[in-house]
Order: sequence, then C-alpha cells, then structure tokens
Amino acid sequence: MTYYGGVEGGATNTVATIINEKGEILGYGKSAGCNTWQVGITGAVHEIVKAVEDAKSEAGLKSDITLTGLGICIGGSQQAMIDVFHKEYPALANEIIVKDDTAGSMATAFDQGGIVLIAGTGSNCVYNGPDGSSKRCGGWGNFMGDEGSAWWISHRAIKYLFDDDDNLKKAPFSVEPLRAMMHGYFKVESNTEMLNHFYTGFSKSFFAGFCKEISHGAIQKKDQLCRHVFKEAAQVLADHIAGVMPYISKEYHLLNKGTGILCIGSVWNSWELLEDGFFSRLREKINGETKSVKLLKPVITSAVGAAILVAKHCGSIVSMDLSKHTKVFHQESI
Amino acid sequence: MTYYGGVEGGATNTVATIINEKGEILGYGKSAGCNTWQVGITGAVHEIVKAVEDAKSEAGLKSDITLTGLGICIGGSQQAMIDVFHKEYPALANEIIVKDDTAGSMATAFDQGGIVLIAGTGSNCVYNGPDGSSKRCGGWGNFMGDEGSAWWISHRAIKYLFDDDDNLKKAPFSVEPLRAMMHGYFKVESNTEMLNHFYTGFSKSFFAGFCKEISHGAIQKKDQLCRHVFKEAAQVLADHIAGVMPYISKEYHLLNKGTGILCIGSVWNSWELLEDGFFSRLREKINGETKSVKLLKPVITSAVGAAILVAKHCGSIVSMDLSKHTKVFHQESI
Repeated sequence: MTYYGGVEGGATNTVATIINEKGEILGYGKSAGCNTWQVGITGAVHEIVKAVEDAKSEAGLKSDITLTGLGICIGGSQQAMIDVFHKEYPALANEIIVKDDTAGSMATAFDQGGIVLIAGTGSNCVYNGPDGSSKRCGGWGNFMGDEGSAWWISHRAIKYLFDDDDNLKKAPFSVEPLRAMMHGYFKVESNTEMLNHFYTGFSKSFFAGFCKEISHGAIQKKDQLCRHVFKEAAQVLADHIAGVMPYISKEYHLLNKGTGILCIGSVWNSWELLEDGFFSRLREKINGETKSVKLLKPVITSAVGAAILVAKHCGSIVSMDLSKHTKVFHQESI
Repeated sequence: MTYYGGVEGGATNTVATIINEKGEILGYGKSAGCNTWQVGITGAVHEIVKAVEDAKSEAGLKSDITLTGLGICIGGSQQAMIDVFHKEYPALANEIIVKDDTAGSMATAFDQGGIVLIAGTGSNCVYNGPDGSSKRCGGWGNFMGDEGSAWWISHRAIKYLFDDDDNLKKAPFSVEPLRAMMHGYFKVESNTEMLNHFYTGFSKSFFAGFCKEISHGAIQKKDQLCRHVFKEAAQVLADHIAGVMPYISKEYHLLNKGTGILCIGSVWNSWELLEDGFFSRLREKINGETKSVKLLKPVITSAVGAAILVAKHCGSIVSMDLSKHTKVFHQESI
C-alpha cells in the first residue's frame, strides 16, 4: 500500500493526517506548535514527527512503515527542514516536501485554482490558477503589512487612541471605551506603560489577541471606534482580493462558477463586522463586469491539502471531493 | 568655584561640557555612544564618565574635583542610572539629574519656553511653556509612531514599492528608480530578500540610513516618488506642530516674538524637500490667527542645556545668551 502524510504546521498546534492513494483519510494526529522561530528547526521537526506518528497510529499503521511521501505546509516554510528529516528520520518518508501554509489550504479546498485570504494573527492573500499561474498580495508580516489581520486591527485601534491623546490626529469616535479595554487587556494604566508591549515585551500573538476584545466591544457594546476599525480591516482585506483579481485567468473562469475565496483565520469569526466594508470596497475596485464571489471557510485541517500536494508530487492522482472540505458562508454578486 | 557638567547622550556619541556658575563654557569632552539598549546601564555610565572627565580636562579641572551638579539628557532616560553613578562614582558630582533628550535641547535653546521637533532616526515633538506647562506629540518609536523621521521616510518609500508590486495599492509615481536604490543600499535583488532587514537583521539606524538615498534621489535625480514621500514627511511633521500649538500659553506669546521651533535631526538637512509641504499643512491646520513661526537649528551641543538644567536644579541662575545657541534657518508668517 501507498501512504501519504500531510502536516499543517502552526504556532500553537501541529496537525497531521495519513491518506492512501485512493484519497481516503485514514487518521489524524496532533502535537505542540512547530513554529521554527519559537522552537528552532530541529524542535519543529520533532513536533512534526510526533504528529505524524500519532496519525499513523490512528490510521492503524505500524510505526516502522515508511510513507511514500510527506507534505508539510508551514508558515514561513523552511527548506532546511528537509535535511534534518533525512538525517534524523531517514525511514519516515521517501519523499518530503515543505511548502507555505497557503499552499496547504489551497490544495485542501481547490483543485481548479482559487484564492486563499488569511486574516489571523497576520494576513496574506494568494491566487493560484488552474494553469499554474499565481499572484500573491500582502503577507510581509507586521513590519511591512499584515493589513486586516488581528495584529493590524489591534495596532490600528491603539494608534487611534495614541494619536487622539497626542492631538496628532483626532479619532473619528471617542477613544474612551477603547482606553478602558486597553488598560484591562494589557494591564496598564497609561500610554507610556504600553511601551513595554511595543518593544522589549512585544508578543505578536498576545498583541493580536486584543483584537478579540475589539470585536467584543464592537458587537456587544456597539462601540463605534471598534466598529470603525473592523470596517477598515474589511476594506483592506477586500483590497487584497482586488489586488489578485486582475491576475485570474480565463481558464479559471471557464472551470469555476464564480470566484471562490477561502477565508482563514480568527478575524473571519467577526464576519458581521466585516461584511459591509468588504463588499462595498470590492465593488468600488472591481467596477465593470459582474462577478459572483463565494466566501468559504474550511471544515477540515489543511494537513489534508499537504498530503494531496505530496501525493501529486509523487505522481499519484488522489480523487477527493474537495467541496466537502469547505462551507460557503457568504455568496454575493458584485 | 562651582562647576556644572552637562551631557548629551546619543547612540553614536556622548558629548559632555563643563560650565561655571556664571554660565561660561569651560570645556567639552567626548566618548562613544551611551544608548542603554546597546551598552547597558553600566556601560552607558562608563561612557558618560569618560566624556565628563575629558571635558574636565579641557576645562583645566583636576580629575578629583567634584562637580556641584551633573545633568544628563539622554533618549529614553533611565532613572536607574543615578544609582549606578552614586555607587560607582560617588565623588563625580553632588547632584545628578537624568532627563529626556528633548529637555536638553529645550534648555539649550529657550529660556521662555519653546518647541523642539526631532526628525532624526526617530521623531518626537515637545512644547514647554514658560509657566511650566508641557505638551508632547508623538515620540513612541517605530512601532507606534516616528512619523516624519528618517526611519519613517525609508519605511514609507519601501511600502509604496511593495504595495505597488503586490497590486495592493498603486504608487502615485513609478517605483522603479526606488527599486534600484533599495537593491543597492540593502544589497538585495528581490522584495523577499528584504525580509531579513525587516525582522531578524533589523537595524533601525541602518534602515533609517536609507532616507539619505531617498533624499539624494529626490534632489539630484528629481525622482517624483522620493519627492512625494518627503512631502508626506513634511506634512506629518507639521501635524506634530499643529498638535502642540493649541497648548501654547498666553504667557508664552507675551514673552516671545513668534513661535520658535528647534528642529533637530538629519531629516532637516533636506529642508528644500520639506518646505512646501510643511507650511501648506501648517496653514491648513492653524487657520485663523496669523502666527509668525521661526525654525531654528542648533549650533551647539545640547550638553550645554543639560548643564543649565542641573545648575537651575541646584539653585544657580546661570545667565547665558541662548539665542547664540541656535540659528534661524526659516521664518514665515502663517
């Protein structure tokens, strides 16, 4: 038998799966986070192996079975990993490929091309065409981008407060509710105390976590500034889509009914705050031809896509109904 | 005799001076940088002592003479320094005060209040009134501000290029001349290679150094995108002034003819690129009463101001003609 392993590598969790050459999912496995910035390349490899072994066990495979291929999709993919695998775990898999996290999501959801729009801690947007063409928009991290991400929403809200206090730029709405939220979440009593969270004590994921409070403020308390920042996030997320749309090939339109956008990340949980800003901006930018847009959310781990990718890489044609891997949460003509 | 020492603490140089109670400058001294983030608090104290001893020597003072007071003005002032001085150098000075770098500049240039607007690697703006009132605008570092600084100009220019390439946002002018400059300065051949300069290999001062290339591109090559970014910097620097202006007291206006703005930092070397944007924005924001604005540049180290501050702290009234410490480089009615 031929077995393919797939891995979705995240900062908090590593998820693995095993499929066979017919495209049947045989099992799943899990381990701790495998972000190479946090645990190093060797540490990441160990976590990945743990998750794969866990999946093999659930799939009923003996530990000494060598996989035909292992596909790993991980944020900021590290080719250097492959060497570590071959050196430390030569019997794990005959072929190993490492790709970006967007590639795993893409392969999980689409087989005729599509768009992945990530708005989690960071943000990123990629279009892949059925003809092998590709266009990326954003995805440069918080120093040079991440617009519309949870980090960006947190940062932008706090920037409104700072600029308003400084009299550098007046905020469009009162900053007082946000101030109370900031003092509570970051456990500070002044703007100056925030400096630690900006520099020495900066944690991107903790900073991005403040976005949940802003969402709460926008929904439960109907705070206008919080709602405004989410609207701006929606607009800039739409800008990402508008950024890749001109690159969508004719072949794609022939093969697909409408444009499928796979929306990944926690920011999409606040869709009610994004909807208006997202579509009004998209309409502004894509004037002219009417297009049908389908927003999808994943209902399965992108480890499956990673396994599909390595199966393809090894020459297997796995047949899976990918439409079952996502759910349409919004459909609109623009 | 009573002697006061003053120190201007920078990231690349530490400059010290000795004045007497008549306000006469007796000597200057120099040593390496004393940024506490770079050399630690103890390392910074050592550099400061070196510069002070150097100044004492030029002033013809014996090394064992204890100063009546020592004033230290340093970016991100560290009160913890004082303990280290008292422990390790108990005979250096009877009184030691540590203040922000803007305080030293302020005391060097103004005795009836004024505005200091820093646009160097970072940016900051402070108004001090003759009545003891004060208003700060900006100065939160590159994570939450630094608008109009060399860092900001470099970042904004590069962001135009990235967003244009991504099709996220079209730049107002061609990004190609800037791309050539970026590839040359950062020694990269693609946007992806810039990631190292954004994260692992980030150096704020090196990144800010790219601003000089942009200035060169704007002046020598008349590149429109470079000129545009400087115009935006000028506007946001004017926003800082507009931010503190409503806080200027009546007393200040009675004591001063016009509003004196001490402009510090390398960005001001490109004044020809800033002038139009600066005053047109200032006029927009300060509509109504006509005001005379004087832009000044320092012609002496702010170590002198640091010495004046500690002399005052010790109850001495040093009489100096502060107008000799600055030069008006532009005067305009708005």
